[in-house]
Amino acid sequence: MLKIRRLAIDTHPENTAFLPRQGNGYSAEQFQALRKIRITGESAEILATLALVDEPALVEAGEIGLGEQAFRRLGLPEGAAVSIEQAPVPASLESVRRKIDGDTLDESEIAAIIRDVAGHRYSPMEIGAFLVACAGFMSTEETLAMTRAMAAVGNRLDWHAPLVVDKHCIGGIPGNRTSMIVVPIVAAHGLIIPKTSSRAITSPSGTADTMEVLANVDLREDELRAIVSREKAVLAWGGRVNLSPADDVLISVERPLRIDTFEQMVASILSKKLAAGSTHLVLDIPVGPTAKVRSQSEAVRLRKLFEHVADKLGLVIDIVLTDGSQPIGRGIGPVLEARDVMAVLRNDADAPEDLRDHALMLAGRVLDFDPALKGGRGFARALELLASGAALEAMERLIAAQGRQPAEFKPGAHIQEICAPRDGRVIAIDCHRIARIARLAGAPMDKGAGIDLVCKVGAEVRKGQALYRIHAQSATGLGFAHDLAREDAGYEIVR
Amino acid sequence: MLKIRRLAIDTHPENTAFLPRQGNGYSAEQFQALRKIRITGESAEILATLALVDEPALVEAGEIGLGEQAFRRLGLPEGAAVSIEQAPVPASLESVRRKIDGDTLDESEIAAIIRDVAGHRYSPMEIGAFLVACAGFMSTEETLAMTRAMAAVGNRLDWHAPLVVDKHCIGGIPGNRTSMIVVPIVAAHGLIIPKTSSRAITSPSGTADTMEVLANVDLREDELRAIVSREKAVLAWGGRVNLSPADDVLISVERPLRIDTFEQMVASILSKKLAAGSTHLVLDIPVGPTAKVRSQSEAVRLRKLFEHVADKLGLVIDIVLTDGSQPIGRGIGPVLEARDVMAVLRNDADAPEDLRDHALMLAGRVLDFDPALKGGRGFARALELLASGAALEAMERLIAAQGRQPAEFKPGAHIQEICAPRDGRVIAIDCHRIARIARLAGAPMDKGAGIDLVCKVGAEVRKGQALYRIHAQSATGLGFAHDLAREDAGYEIVR
Repeated sequence: MLKIRRLAIDTHPENTAFLPRQGNGYSAEQFQALRKIRITGESAEILATLALVDEPALVEAGEIGLGEQAFRRLGLPEGAAVSIEQAPVPASLESVRRKIDGDTLDESEIAAIIRDVAGHRYSPMEIGAFLVACAGFMSTEETLAMTRAMAAVGNRLDWHAPLVVDKHCIGGIPGNRTSMIVVPIVAAHGLIIPKTSSRAITSPSGTADTMEVLANVDLREDELRAIVSREKAVLAWGGRVNLSPADDVLISVERPLRIDTFEQMVASILSKKLAAGSTHLVLDIPVGPTAKVRSQSEAVRLRKLFEHVADKLGLVIDIVLTDGSQPIGRGIGPVLEARDVMAVLRNDADAPEDLRDHALMLAGRVLDFDPALKGGRGFARALELLASGAALEAMERLIAAQGRQPAEFKPGAHIQEICAPRDGRVIAIDCHRIARIARLAGAPMDKGAGIDLVCKVGAEVRKGQALYRIHAQSATGLGFAHDLAREDAGYEIVR
Repeated sequence: MLKIRRLAIDTHPENTAFLPRQGNGYSAEQFQALRKIRITGESAEILATLALVDEPALVEAGEIGLGEQAFRRLGLPEGAAVSIEQAPVPASLESVRRKIDGDTLDESEIAAIIRDVAGHRYSPMEIGAFLVACAGFMSTEETLAMTRAMAAVGNRLDWHAPLVVDKHCIGGIPGNRTSMIVVPIVAAHGLIIPKTSSRAITSPSGTADTMEVLANVDLREDELRAIVSREKAVLAWGGRVNLSPADDVLISVERPLRIDTFEQMVASILSKKLAAGSTHLVLDIPVGPTAKVRSQSEAVRLRKLFEHVADKLGLVIDIVLTDGSQPIGRGIGPVLEARDVMAVLRNDADAPEDLRDHALMLAGRVLDFDPALKGGRGFARALELLASGAALEAMERLIAAQGRQPAEFKPGAHIQEICAPRDGRVIAIDCHRIARIARLAGAPMDKGAGIDLVCKVGAEVRKGQALYRIHAQSATGLGFAHDLAREDAGYEIVR
């Protein structure tokens, strides 16, 4: 047995254990070959990467040093006795190998893989191999099994209500911050809509990032439940409540590898909705040349997959294919988007019309789930709730319930105008490009960073007229973003 | 700038850098998000994983601690000034992503990937993604490009001779240690055969492991050259001479993921041969139900791929499809195989006939490359050189030149007989199973561990009669192997 010594070494995101090379009761060379070990205490165990140490100041014979992550995750006190051994190879890796060879896996095999992934028993290399093998080919049954398995691991919210609605967009369109308009409208109507969102992964802002400009989004499960029972709604970050944790692990590998298949998308989104306790979902799939879905035929394939899997899971889904040809609204980045959202909710005369119309359409579709609103009366009801100020009131109550931000965030003060290089008409805006420029400016980490669009598709512009303004909180961020915009501003202008 | 401090922390196989969280002149949170950094000194640079430290005893403000691997690979003295920055993302990853999406890559893209892999600029996750994507589909042109790119990175031996022969087996058949018989026969004839081999990766022994029972195989390039110029031959471990280093990196990921495609096999083997300066190669492809190649049609596909790529590379190749239905020889594991090899070379009456015949056939095919031996007279010449003792003499000279092992290795003293469960005839032996049992016994790390076969396919056995003996150097190893053999001994016996 070895005694735990806590070391102030931050080895994020990995667990690392530091073992003295001499006198640890184990053959160091043996462990050297192993590299990954299992540390077992009386009531807990973790896997960790092993480093062998010859510095007596750090760890002494009979001790095992744990870096911060390993110490916290093991959760035992300093001095507690643990044993170590070679980390076992997860049996489910055999199924991953079969998948690499082109086999189709059954439900129990996929469930075992997902459990091991969520339990951090796979290395990033192994997760990457699984994902790439799935990217090669994945059957509808495999996608269903994966969704089910992902929802089954981790927390599962139950609202004890027959109708729990949700609205989701697959993403990819900058500025498309409709959830923050749809949720207050639906809450004002009285349906339960406990919306948990992610933070931005590759985009300039996620709903959680933008909502955070106005209110606290980092809620514990008990806080979340209390708010929903009072307000019918919430606009929270989902990270705290441990919904479909396998999804978070998979995304941590999908992101750097930029794996972005329809099957993973369906499993990711629907597993989160299932775990969040939703019964009815409106799903927004924007289609456009620079959107995630490029063509109508791709969109139809994706819709069928979503419908098939949702149906088997007992989730009612209404899928809307929408115009994803350009950004929606004006602001891109947390502060600028929050400004647009509040302008729509306040019925400001200069609120961006496309954002308002898009949100109203989606809110209408969500309200159509209410049996009381028969025959497609959802849209009219949504319009009424927005125009009357009921939605704004619901939003203000939500902000107060979640905890209003003490200080107001401002758009970044470092500003650069990007201007039309010639006279003509704007015929296309590249969503990817705009998103990258906004990210380089500092979004979403710098809340005030981003892009404020002046011209949209269809606008007639004169040479030198502003197309958009880049906002940044530092000169460096502005410089990076400006360099990228100078290379290609993302606008196509023809005479 | 930071000053290097050498830390006695072994973080094999990774480079790890330890940076104080405070007062390092960089924002720690910034680097936390980065994790992987580039450390640049006056004349050298490395990539390393970052750990943030709050232990002043380990590193102080203004210093950067380097673990053993990082310190050695950077190669700068303690106290030298270095700067750090986020490790750049290799541009070639964009091609990997396209490959994941199902695209075909061109020669320059594959070359860029291989250079970055060999330069340790890819994470294991990224290498795994690339390999799995290639396992999904890889064109013949891609395989050729990969082989060429792998051979181009690293060392390339040149023997300044028009005819440099080699013999290789794709592996998978336990006991098939023919190289140690073929090489002395060919050397005795006078052709140049500088054979570099790998150590076992997943098998109970590689040629380098078995040869090491008799002689030193860990030779520097100058030693290798000196021996070949005197003896025409060598039987060395290839790891020291840096041939196709990308192959070693790829294998380090292929092995845990057990990726084993024909395309990777062709690129791996032919890139090593090209880098080793071979001009003519005899390649042994065993075909059998438990071999790497399971059917004649698979074998023909693999042969065509080898022939196509070798032809484009200007390498003359003679491919022999051989009987891979059971182990060859009797001993499996370094010491037991070395015993068989020497018995054949000494023309012992009880030397395993199948090993002798197989080696003679292959040696004959190699000798057929000699223009002086016209009309397929290679086999007769091989037989003559073996029978006359010339091959044994050549082997003894090789052993002496490489450095004879000072002490004799013995078969493991812990022995377990595995017996026939019934009367009948042996109709099949499972190569995989036998290999796994031998590995669990301790081979190849424990040189004396392994299996000694008593009965081969076709033998009539009585219940209780020994099929094979497991040798181990420890009771633990013997126990592991015996457990596996009890579950399934790997023999099929019918009445």
